[in-house]
Amino acid sequence: MNDIVVQKYGGSSLANSEKIKRVAQKIRDKVNEGYKLIVIVSAMGKTTDQLVDLAKEVSPKPHPRELDMLLTTGEQVSAALLSMALNDLKVKTKSLNAFQAGIFTSSNFSEARIQKFKIEKIMKLLRDHDVLVITGFQGVTEEGDLTTLGRGGSDISAVALAAALGTDCEIYSDFPGIFTFDPRLYRNAKKLKYVTYDEMLEMASLGARVLHSRAVEIAKKYNVKVYCASTFSDEEGTYVVADNIEQSVVTGMSVMENQTRVTIANLPLDYSLVYKIFDKVAQKAFNVDMISIISINNRLHVSFTIIEGEMENFDRYLREALSSFDEISVNYEHGYVKLSVVGIGMRNEKGVASRFFKSLRDIPIKMVTTSEIKISCLIEKEYMKKAIDTLIKEFNL
Amino acid sequence: MNDIVVQKYGGSSLANSEKIKRVAQKIRDKVNEGYKLIVIVSAMGKTTDQLVDLAKEVSPKPHPRELDMLLTTGEQVSAALLSMALNDLKVKTKSLNAFQAGIFTSSNFSEARIQKFKIEKIMKLLRDHDVLVITGFQGVTEEGDLTTLGRGGSDISAVALAAALGTDCEIYSDFPGIFTFDPRLYRNAKKLKYVTYDEMLEMASLGARVLHSRAVEIAKKYNVKVYCASTFSDEEGTYVVADNIEQSVVTGMSVMENQTRVTIANLPLDYSLVYKIFDKVAQKAFNVDMISIISINNRLHVSFTIIEGEMENFDRYLREALSSFDEISVNYEHGYVKLSVVGIGMRNEKGVASRFFKSLRDIPIKMVTTSEIKISCLIEKEYMKKAIDTLIKEFNL
Repeated sequence: MNDIVVQKYGGSSLANSEKIKRVAQKIRDKVNEGYKLIVIVSAMGKTTDQLVDLAKEVSPKPHPRELDMLLTTGEQVSAALLSMALNDLKVKTKSLNAFQAGIFTSSNFSEARIQKFKIEKIMKLLRDHDVLVITGFQGVTEEGDLTTLGRGGSDISAVALAAALGTDCEIYSDFPGIFTFDPRLYRNAKKLKYVTYDEMLEMASLGARVLHSRAVEIAKKYNVKVYCASTFSDEEGTYVVADNIEQSVVTGMSVMENQTRVTIANLPLDYSLVYKIFDKVAQKAFNVDMISIISINNRLHVSFTIIEGEMENFDRYLREALSSFDEISVNYEHGYVKLSVVGIGMRNEKGVASRFFKSLRDIPIKMVTTSEIKISCLIEKEYMKKAIDTLIKEFNL
Repeated sequence: MNDIVVQKYGGSSLANSEKIKRVAQKIRDKVNEGYKLIVIVSAMGKTTDQLVDLAKEVSPKPHPRELDMLLTTGEQVSAALLSMALNDLKVKTKSLNAFQAGIFTSSNFSEARIQKFKIEKIMKLLRDHDVLVITGFQGVTEEGDLTTLGRGGSDISAVALAAALGTDCEIYSDFPGIFTFDPRLYRNAKKLKYVTYDEMLEMASLGARVLHSRAVEIAKKYNVKVYCASTFSDEEGTYVVADNIEQSVVTGMSVMENQTRVTIANLPLDYSLVYKIFDKVAQKAFNVDMISIISINNRLHVSFTIIEGEMENFDRYLREALSSFDEISVNYEHGYVKLSVVGIGMRNEKGVASRFFKSLRDIPIKMVTTSEIKISCLIEKEYMKKAIDTLIKEFNL
């Protein structure tokens, strides 16, 4: 049988009938090159958002199982339409939803995990078809309930299926690849030809939106070669691989605005209490970042960042968790920006941190966290542009 | 276990979130009366039309299998939303699509026939739930392809499931029941309390749109008691039953406008030729009605009606079928109206035809056809109002 490749097309690449027909042509060209394709599709354009809005009109808190039942229709629509367009181009094709493709997941609705695919069925269908168009973002439980994998879940569907089949995976979207820095914020950002799984994981968690971080985790675990490129351009994209053969020290930079620093002062010197606070906060799925803890005079002082928009809810849960300690003070400071540089080269290269801090010496840095391949700092928004320009120059991004 | 009843809600009863919530309340009230319910839903409002339009944007002639894949999403959306609304009312419920409910059909896409249900699964789920919301209009083949049952197919889903379960069936729509005559055309038309299957079959084929005629056929075959009523009113509806205990001679009347009379004169006296013509026309699914054939001087003259909008296509196929006979003349006359009265009482009561013709004695009648329980006549449109008023008075409709 011909070589198989898994492709994934994002919602904006399928936003209307014209785009769907253009995607079909692109797929037909790949078939003509001699490939068999499995194409994973997202819902058209803003369909998922619209379905969520509809659910909220009906129910203030939609039942999770029924919400997934509702949302899975979005990908079925785009799969059927793309398959129609492919049929018109004489491509032997069939669309498959989660039942038909046999995508089995755990049963935690809205954030289910893929457990297995009916690979034999998919391989059997591939014998008679050139292209299988499969609904992304969704699965079924062993009991036959429909589930979804969370926002951006189609990336996970694509990479997981590529892993199960042992094939490469191509992710097509509006973005022509992975950049050293968000090209919408800095238009001279360079596109990378290669980026490693670890770098992508750090960058994805920093807000780079080309590839879902769980998809990167799966790609890393099963060593799936992932290619990210623009749907409607022939410009070369970016390969996400195990080792970066073009290794530079710092591969990319990211920025997250609207950060709020939370400081909890005067906690008793009891780390289990700290665990309890973060556990409670994690249960509510707040994004807590840049945690630093120091102890002074038998008291703990804890600092971390949250997203500004989540502050009100966050404060309510935090005060609940701390209700038995009256002398504790909680303080919120808004308007911060988190700036990070990422690069697998940091593992081997000494002095990256020193170059980082030296270049930013004129800017007041409020917090710092580091990992093996990442340095992040929190600064005030007025210094953002200056810091970005400085780091891009320093690390040649 | 509690008594089970099957209910079906049409698309206009589920057209927006407010209506969906009101339908949920109606269902909850029935649950509180002590029933377990299976609720069959159509797609919201005009969803199916919109999906068909979308398909036509992508493909001039959408692949039938993929079109069904697309259209089945409409009912899944309304099933999920209704189930959310029921959950909010503390009703134990679950929505099921064709895979989940196990609705197996033949594989002729867009007009599939229901073959069986997974009754054991449905009964098992009914033990733990008060309401199962099931997608109407659709099924799956043994191979796992999604199918649809044709327009109005949710009626078929509901009645067939009621037949399989041996329960009653309630059909809710905008129409408060079955009328002696279309209430939009004649606002004093009377609502019937009872109508028989046979009368409904004649009326459905005459354009009464409350209940799909295949649904009536199934109800008749399995003796399912069907109740048709308005979704959002407590007004009593109409029972469709085997025998009309309120038997009046004429139960209802219907009118179809835009009729064209076709006359084929001077065919050779060969009835197999007539068969061939109608067979060819039937293959193209033209609605041919009121056929009359006479032979004069060893020549056959055939007359029948078609719908005016279909004339152009019809003529092309007819001329193809008749291409070997040059002396034949085909003539089309437009602007006719077909008026029919239906009543199971005609079987026993003599003189209905005579009352019919006597009351219409001042109106030129162009054609007449009759069945055991129906008399139809073709008249010019200018006489329509007069004929309707006369027949309503004569038969007390």
